[in-house]
Amino acid sequence: MVSAGAMSGSGNLMDFLDEPFPDVGTYEDFHTIDWLREKSRDTDRHRKITSKSKESLWEFIKSLLDAWSGWVVMLLIGLLAGTLAGVIDLAVDWMTDLKEGVCLSAFWYSHEQCCWTSNETTFEDRDKCPLWQKWSELLVNQSEGASAYILNYLMYILWALLFAFLAVSLVRVFAPYACGSGIPEIKTILSGFIIRGYLGKWTLLIKTVTLVLVVSSGLSLGKEGPLVHVACCCGNFFSSLFSKYSKNEGKRREVLSAAAAAGVSVAFGAPIGGVLFSLEEVSYYFPLKTLWRSFFAALVAAFTLRSINPFGNSRLVLFYVEYHTPWYMAELFPFILLGVFGGLWGTLFIRCNIAWCRRRKTTRLGKYPVLEVIVVTAITAIIAYPNPYTRQSTSELISELFNDCGALESSQLCDYINDPNMTRPVDDIPDRPAGVGVYTAMWQLALALIFKIVVTIFTFGMKIPSGLFIPSMAVGAMAGRMVGIGVEQLAYHHHDWIIFRNWCRPGADCVTPGLYAMVGAAACLGGVTRMTVSLVVIMFELTGGLEYIVPLMAAAVTSKWVADAFGKEGIYEAHIHLNGYPFLDVKDEFTHRTLATDVMRPRRGEPPLSVLTQDSMTVEDVETLIKETDYNGFPVVVSRDSERLIGFAQRRELILAIKNARQRQEGIVSNSIMYFTEEPPELPANSPHPLKLRRILNLSPFTVTDHTPMETVVDIFRKLGLRQCLVTRSGRLLGIITKKDVLRHMAQMANQDPESIMFN
Amino acid sequence: MVSAGAMSGSGNLMDFLDEPFPDVGTYEDFHTIDWLREKSRDTDRHRKITSKSKESLWEFIKSLLDAWSGWVVMLLIGLLAGTLAGVIDLAVDWMTDLKEGVCLSAFWYSHEQCCWTSNETTFEDRDKCPLWQKWSELLVNQSEGASAYILNYLMYILWALLFAFLAVSLVRVFAPYACGSGIPEIKTILSGFIIRGYLGKWTLLIKTVTLVLVVSSGLSLGKEGPLVHVACCCGNFFSSLFSKYSKNEGKRREVLSAAAAAGVSVAFGAPIGGVLFSLEEVSYYFPLKTLWRSFFAALVAAFTLRSINPFGNSRLVLFYVEYHTPWYMAELFPFILLGVFGGLWGTLFIRCNIAWCRRRKTTRLGKYPVLEVIVVTAITAIIAYPNPYTRQSTSELISELFNDCGALESSQLCDYINDPNMTRPVDDIPDRPAGVGVYTAMWQLALALIFKIVVTIFTFGMKIPSGLFIPSMAVGAMAGRMVGIGVEQLAYHHHDWIIFRNWCRPGADCVTPGLYAMVGAAACLGGVTRMTVSLVVIMFELTGGLEYIVPLMAAAVTSKWVADAFGKEGIYEAHIHLNGYPFLDVKDEFTHRTLATDVMRPRRGEPPLSVLTQDSMTVEDVETLIKETDYNGFPVVVSRDSERLIGFAQRRELILAIKNARQRQEGIVSNSIMYFTEEPPELPANSPHPLKLRRILNLSPFTVTDHTPMETVVDIFRKLGLRQCLVTRSGRLLGIITKKDVLRHMAQMANQDPESIMFN
Repeated sequence: MVSAGAMSGSGNLMDFLDEPFPDVGTYEDFHTIDWLREKSRDTDRHRKITSKSKESLWEFIKSLLDAWSGWVVMLLIGLLAGTLAGVIDLAVDWMTDLKEGVCLSAFWYSHEQCCWTSNETTFEDRDKCPLWQKWSELLVNQSEGASAYILNYLMYILWALLFAFLAVSLVRVFAPYACGSGIPEIKTILSGFIIRGYLGKWTLLIKTVTLVLVVSSGLSLGKEGPLVHVACCCGNFFSSLFSKYSKNEGKRREVLSAAAAAGVSVAFGAPIGGVLFSLEEVSYYFPLKTLWRSFFAALVAAFTLRSINPFGNSRLVLFYVEYHTPWYMAELFPFILLGVFGGLWGTLFIRCNIAWCRRRKTTRLGKYPVLEVIVVTAITAIIAYPNPYTRQSTSELISELFNDCGALESSQLCDYINDPNMTRPVDDIPDRPAGVGVYTAMWQLALALIFKIVVTIFTFGMKIPSGLFIPSMAVGAMAGRMVGIGVEQLAYHHHDWIIFRNWCRPGADCVTPGLYAMVGAAACLGGVTRMTVSLVVIMFELTGGLEYIVPLMAAAVTSKWVADAFGKEGIYEAHIHLNGYPFLDVKDEFTHRTLATDVMRPRRGEPPLSVLTQDSMTVEDVETLIKETDYNGFPVVVSRDSERLIGFAQRRELILAIKNARQRQEGIVSNSIMYFTEEPPELPANSPHPLKLRRILNLSPFTVTDHTPMETVVDIFRKLGLRQCLVTRSGRLLGIITKKDVLRHMAQMANQDPESIMFN
Repeated sequence: MVSAGAMSGSGNLMDFLDEPFPDVGTYEDFHTIDWLREKSRDTDRHRKITSKSKESLWEFIKSLLDAWSGWVVMLLIGLLAGTLAGVIDLAVDWMTDLKEGVCLSAFWYSHEQCCWTSNETTFEDRDKCPLWQKWSELLVNQSEGASAYILNYLMYILWALLFAFLAVSLVRVFAPYACGSGIPEIKTILSGFIIRGYLGKWTLLIKTVTLVLVVSSGLSLGKEGPLVHVACCCGNFFSSLFSKYSKNEGKRREVLSAAAAAGVSVAFGAPIGGVLFSLEEVSYYFPLKTLWRSFFAALVAAFTLRSINPFGNSRLVLFYVEYHTPWYMAELFPFILLGVFGGLWGTLFIRCNIAWCRRRKTTRLGKYPVLEVIVVTAITAIIAYPNPYTRQSTSELISELFNDCGALESSQLCDYINDPNMTRPVDDIPDRPAGVGVYTAMWQLALALIFKIVVTIFTFGMKIPSGLFIPSMAVGAMAGRMVGIGVEQLAYHHHDWIIFRNWCRPGADCVTPGLYAMVGAAACLGGVTRMTVSLVVIMFELTGGLEYIVPLMAAAVTSKWVADAFGKEGIYEAHIHLNGYPFLDVKDEFTHRTLATDVMRPRRGEPPLSVLTQDSMTVEDVETLIKETDYNGFPVVVSRDSERLIGFAQRRELILAIKNARQRQEGIVSNSIMYFTEEPPELPANSPHPLKLRRILNLSPFTVTDHTPMETVVDIFRKLGLRQCLVTRSGRLLGIITKKDVLRHMAQMANQDPESIMFN
């Protein structure tokens, strides 16, 4: 009877082991996934569905739904990301204006919406719109004079502080992950790291709300990076609705890549640029299928945003510009100078920002995030208000700087002295001497530039959502516009110089300062992020013409080269390093001559590798081993003497299997022999029932020989997304290399502190 | 003295083995390269240059030149590809017109250039330009009447035959690789296959010349695919000038990927589309560095082409269109119908064309390529001449079909009945009833459509350069324009129907037939090539507005789904299969449950694997093994008994090493023991001098276990670009899997003939 019981026990065992245990195949927080395993799990799932689909109509429909779910997820992401971006734009518009005044007809109207109803909508009459009341008008019925100015100033600061305080408190209380731009973390997550909650529903909600608050507060930050984070949260949310994506970390990341594309798409209205951004900058594993789906998501998002029409002009793009003049070869020189400026700005920003963030992390400064935000907001608001170029929102500023001075333009930047005798078509205004307004604008811009440079360094990295696309672009646009006006005036006053003679005769419209602003913006953005193709494509989508791609490319290339000369890392990689995330950059080249044997554990002198044997260890031995070590898994060898590798067992699955077996299987005691072979080992008569664990054994662990060059190992880790790799020599197990070991080795080779790599 | 001699011999040996042999590291024709090996060779080279650069200023400059050579190559490729494309365009223009007449002022003027000098340049007066004489006018002084028509007809056919005969003869005599579109072969080459001469200088020259001839001959083919081939030949030529690229097959392929982008860029004037085409459709290994450089090459090429200005309008793009009307939701239905048509056309074309090409390969038909070309040209010319839509060149036809009917348009397709009471701005002409011209155009288009469909199937694959972008687009554009006119007339005559009522009231300009033509063209091109993102981006660059991306996407997606339902292969993959190239498609998913053990050689029952032992085989043994087998390499094991793997030796290098040793080393005879270990084996006293071959031993061969699922193996082969992989079980060598084995297995699993995979 006992043997029958044992038999039935063993029968149960077999059934039980053919079923996956609960929780098998999930990962712990702050751990790295194994891409190959995820992929093969997905193939298994797919195979199951395909074979089932032939059984019944219902299963067939289910298989169709499964095949279509990818597109459905993309559609939903596009719709939600577009809607959120539209709502954020509208809310920011309203709240930015709220700092200056309020609309009497309906307090939820922004300045522009308020004045639509009154018929004076041109720029000049903007301030005359009677329904819009500045705070001084509303509170003390004064619109001019020093006291009105001071009151408005105070209200501006108060609102800014209120918004910033609300934002930082919300982030601290509800969703600490909602701070920052999110792109460094998303890059890390997409490369296969698990950060639970980083893309959660709370983060989505709080990030959306606080993003509106911080942008409205007038801090020197943008919404573009955080929008990518928001879109990825949407992606994570929708992928959790479909088991195809929610249960497979690899597939989920495909969705997130596409969501990142949708995020950039709505940030700039540039769907193609968004897809290329995701491909170039964010994504790690980007199969071609994802490219197509990303494109779909990016388009849906862009069109959803357009149908909400937050910019009120049914334009898709954030900064729409149209220039009427071609550029000339000689202008490449100032463009390249702007590229150099962009590269220097990028280097300066990254170095200073990282130094400041490191200080924040390591000193007591980091303990008062709310205070920090309040102080920075107060300083920003106090300095920003007096200068019109810092008082207006940064995207308006960029928009104004990009614009060509048409005949109807009333901006201070377009205050040129007109020749009254000249009548010309609107599109073709010749270069003119600068008026007083332009000179005023120049020094205001110079002050604004210095202020932006300093304040952005301290703003990025605070515990609030903060992107740096817009501040970087603003820095570049200001510098560019100033250079552009300089070149324009030089060409006007010295049109007989050799360099100007050929293309800039008097009365010609030869220099477009707006184009310089755009080139400068591209250069600065490139210097900070080291984007290349996607940067040019985004800029191309803004202007909509291939005409200006050469200046943009020249500036982007120069900026990248200059910045790379001072340090290879872009701001996102620098923040990844700062936080010690295990990110194996695809762009880094590993060129050292080391071998796998130099990197593997155990090193010389260290105790030997903790291994399991295939059929001689007891349950207790294994439990002790698990207790004493914190490795993620153990290689399984034939015996301690031969050390021939037969497979790899995950720690997590071992624990679960033993726990399950002890609870549900009869006869499993601490003395039971565990075996990984097909057949149970021959045991002495009275020994307890052995425990078969072949099911959790990975029979195809990845191996390299000890002579494999590390460059190959790095390549394999990158391309196959491995988590660990075993090292053998003529079939004998020598050691193990994990992703963390690889990253530490790379840090060491680059003379950095290997201990900065914290997670595995 | 003998031992001293042996010593010095052994000293020589060491020196000699530390130097690479000549020819080591090159590959044989029709063989596959090993990407990992190429990459690590490049890293070695790079390391050498970096370490040398610190030695002297000259070396430092050399290292800078080396770092910049990539950009120089791209610049040169862009310049040459752009120039060639411009020259081809100009020559095609002239020779196409030559079939109809000649310019009296200068015979090398095309019709348009000829008439520029006379002042009648509008479309209507085109035929009245006195300097341009039709052949009938020139030869018999008649411009009207039946005999003049017949004479012109005959001259048209004669010229066509002459051009085609010249083309096919040139290809046959000088460069047989110049035929076809070249894209299937380029895909295969980029995936790591060697076809010597395919990208050679002769191919470049002959393909350029014959491309002009065949396009001018009026055959139903395009120049876009061949332009990619031409650009890749340029890339190959320039990369052979720099040792960084000429000596490394992997690096060379990076250049070729960029060159392919430049080719598409000049073919359509779409640099971004070109880069995405290269990424999506052509390239295999596409690191991000290449993306940026491809973009550079594509831009340089596009701007070179523009400065040559072959289209005479300083536009960058081949078909420039500007539509004035938005599209409406209801129009998505006809757009999707066009997508279905495109998918069906793609399926029909691929099936028929492949069947015909297979017939050509296997029957006597293939022995008369010249005759075939002559016959097809004659039939094409005879049928094409009477129909104005087939007589004109295909790109002109597409251009006309894409065009919106403006007020100044004199084409037959725009012969609408105008309401004389209506005066309207030029851009906003309401829908009008169709006139006689439109109805004539409709049946002519219908005939032209059928003709194009049939003749293209027979034309693609003949022994002349032939692309199918343009014919495919023409088929789609014709179908699309017809559908567009149909919808337009339906909307005009039935504007009270519910679907039209909302957006198409009388007097409104609601349907743009040109847009339908464009959507149809995209659908048909998508059906044949299965391009997705790059297709939409190319079309987007043609129209320059995001406005019409949704219709294009809807059609492209539908077309791809419909075509995929009938067969997964695009035309290029189908031709790759037809030719048996070893191409491992990145897009194919391998979903079967097989294991490495099912695929590896030797199979059960086959003789054991040919291996070398590390220190017990003689030179003669190895020579016999090499003679008796044709494997590309041999695994090296500890001994035949233990079968523990220590490395892998390439056949080519073994042969070279033995040859070199026999010639230069003393004491190496047939009985010499060959050893791969660090230390020579202990030999009996009188045995001959052993031969050390550790230098050619690859100590890090790639291994998988026999239990590895084939999907993982396929993934590894794809991502790492392996050529072979050894299979082990607990450290013992079991077998080997080559790329050919993988491809054969995949063919078998897809129920295809595994013997169709011919190369390794």
